[in-house]
Amino acid sequence: MTQQSPDPLLSSARAPTLAGVERAAAKVAELLPMTPLLPLEIDGRTIWCKAECLQPVGAFKIRGAWHRLTDLTPEQAAAGVVGVSSGNHAQGVAWAAKRLGIPATIVMPSNAPRMKLAATRALGAEVVLYDRVTESRDAVAAKLLAERGGTLVHAYGDPWIIEGQGSAGIEARAQLAARGIAGPDQVIACCGGGGLSAGLALACPDAEIIAVEPEGWDDVTRSLAAGEILSVEDLAYPTECDALQTPQTWPINFAVLQARGVRGVVVTRDEVRHAMRAAFERLHLVVEPGGAAALAAVLAGKVVLGEATLVTLSGGNVDPQHYAEILAG
Amino acid sequence: MTQQSPDPLLSSARAPTLAGVERAAAKVAELLPMTPLLPLEIDGRTIWCKAECLQPVGAFKIRGAWHRLTDLTPEQAAAGVVGVSSGNHAQGVAWAAKRLGIPATIVMPSNAPRMKLAATRALGAEVVLYDRVTESRDAVAAKLLAERGGTLVHAYGDPWIIEGQGSAGIEARAQLAARGIAGPDQVIACCGGGGLSAGLALACPDAEIIAVEPEGWDDVTRSLAAGEILSVEDLAYPTECDALQTPQTWPINFAVLQARGVRGVVVTRDEVRHAMRAAFERLHLVVEPGGAAALAAVLAGKVVLGEATLVTLSGGNVDPQHYAEILAG
Repeated sequence: MTQQSPDPLLSSARAPTLAGVERAAAKVAELLPMTPLLPLEIDGRTIWCKAECLQPVGAFKIRGAWHRLTDLTPEQAAAGVVGVSSGNHAQGVAWAAKRLGIPATIVMPSNAPRMKLAATRALGAEVVLYDRVTESRDAVAAKLLAERGGTLVHAYGDPWIIEGQGSAGIEARAQLAARGIAGPDQVIACCGGGGLSAGLALACPDAEIIAVEPEGWDDVTRSLAAGEILSVEDLAYPTECDALQTPQTWPINFAVLQARGVRGVVVTRDEVRHAMRAAFERLHLVVEPGGAAALAAVLAGKVVLGEATLVTLSGGNVDPQHYAEILAG
Repeated sequence: MTQQSPDPLLSSARAPTLAGVERAAAKVAELLPMTPLLPLEIDGRTIWCKAECLQPVGAFKIRGAWHRLTDLTPEQAAAGVVGVSSGNHAQGVAWAAKRLGIPATIVMPSNAPRMKLAATRALGAEVVLYDRVTESRDAVAAKLLAERGGTLVHAYGDPWIIEGQGSAGIEARAQLAARGIAGPDQVIACCGGGGLSAGLALACPDAEIIAVEPEGWDDVTRSLAAGEILSVEDLAYPTECDALQTPQTWPINFAVLQARGVRGVVVTRDEVRHAMRAAFERLHLVVEPGGAAALAAVLAGKVVLGEATLVTLSGGNVDPQHYAEILAG
């Protein structure tokens, strides 16, 4: 099954750029301290973990949301925004909207982690639920926009979102430079729709970029190998990586990834759980399943490490019972 | 029961100073990036959490150990060091010793968390075990020093250790200043023997300092109220806060705390567990029981908050099974 991106949702035809990433990074720097870049030794080599789970909403998504919402015109801001998200982007948009006084409606899957639903509502956003298997979230958002007006803030298929997420790469470059290290020469990113991967590809133009997806939700990996956008085949395929459950990447993301020769890597449930436990024991960070995919690829030996490898720990929003089960397992 | 500090272990009669804290902070800054200072909103007020659990050894103890070991003479360094610790100081000393090529022996309780014992040995230190209830760790260390020579690196009763731990306060002041905030005007610290509390009292001379201890191990609280050093009465009193299980503070710590009018607050097991869960859900940080005591005091409403309150999240070394049990509880 191939889902076509609904054209009315493309908020802009412009391509994201490195200059845009740098502008986003400057705006983010005014608001948020850099997240730590934590060294982790693996078999005698040091990798650099970008702890995005320490962002105020517990994920890197606050970056793109802030860049997008601060670029709205006063008229657009007054009309409000509609976000589409499994939870982390939801919180990012809701957080930015609250801070800027912009009305926000977020389309979220009904089976999103309770913590993510509650946190989004607590930030003052209206949440509209959809069924992940039987409904298209983009179609639900399109209907809302047709009824109410406002601006779509897509979770990944948007040049502002891509540029905003890329600001993590600008920070990492500065943090490595402060330690006297050139790089990164390799970036390993958790990948859902490809917003973060594309942003980091722009931010780190000299680095090898690897996008890591969970088993069953490997559409970007297959798309990059095939040279065309393919979709997830079984939308009911079970995964714990709710943050990476995107049916299909968008042309704006795919174009960046393809131009940079990005390749995909797929990790299993057990590899992700192992990485979450490693983050617990060695970094003392709570990382959600989708946020641990990149580290999982490294720990599972699925990537030949570079000299200065950047790994995203992209989110930490996981229900405590679920986390306890994974730790004990 | 009152234990007297064995005089031969007093590594120096000099008092710790703010100038010493500043010198320690400069040395630490050459080696380690600042740990994040994370805002946390509580009932509409923001407190500032110093995430020391993100240090390379998972606790602030790396600060004092680095300050002490880098000030050894070449002859002292060659003769090695002996540390005494429930686990976090052990790792701090072992980490610094490994980096500096100094032989290290650490006296640790036989019931220390497995993770702490394993991590200390993995850093190359020799571990000598003692029984927390029937033996005095200071006596075991004194015997080792008499047999082997070397320099004692006490976990708290040492001017270098106090100054080194205080470097966290120098960082916090700079981090608040970068956000345009004067302060801290209040520092709430997890307290075992009083090394961190005394260091922060020196680092933040204008702040109110509150030392938080776990139920049953409240000797500093009682000592400050009584105006003289008292000991823990029941060394078998159960607590999950292994990092704060110190039988008695030392005169060098007590003098600083008393001069600054520090007062103690005591938290229960359930209050500590609640704080650990809050750190998980809201900050995505793994905090061990002893590292969550200060936050527990705030969340339990046992402290009237200041305008700019600094709270230490002082360590994150907790066994995964234990943590899972606490999360699920």
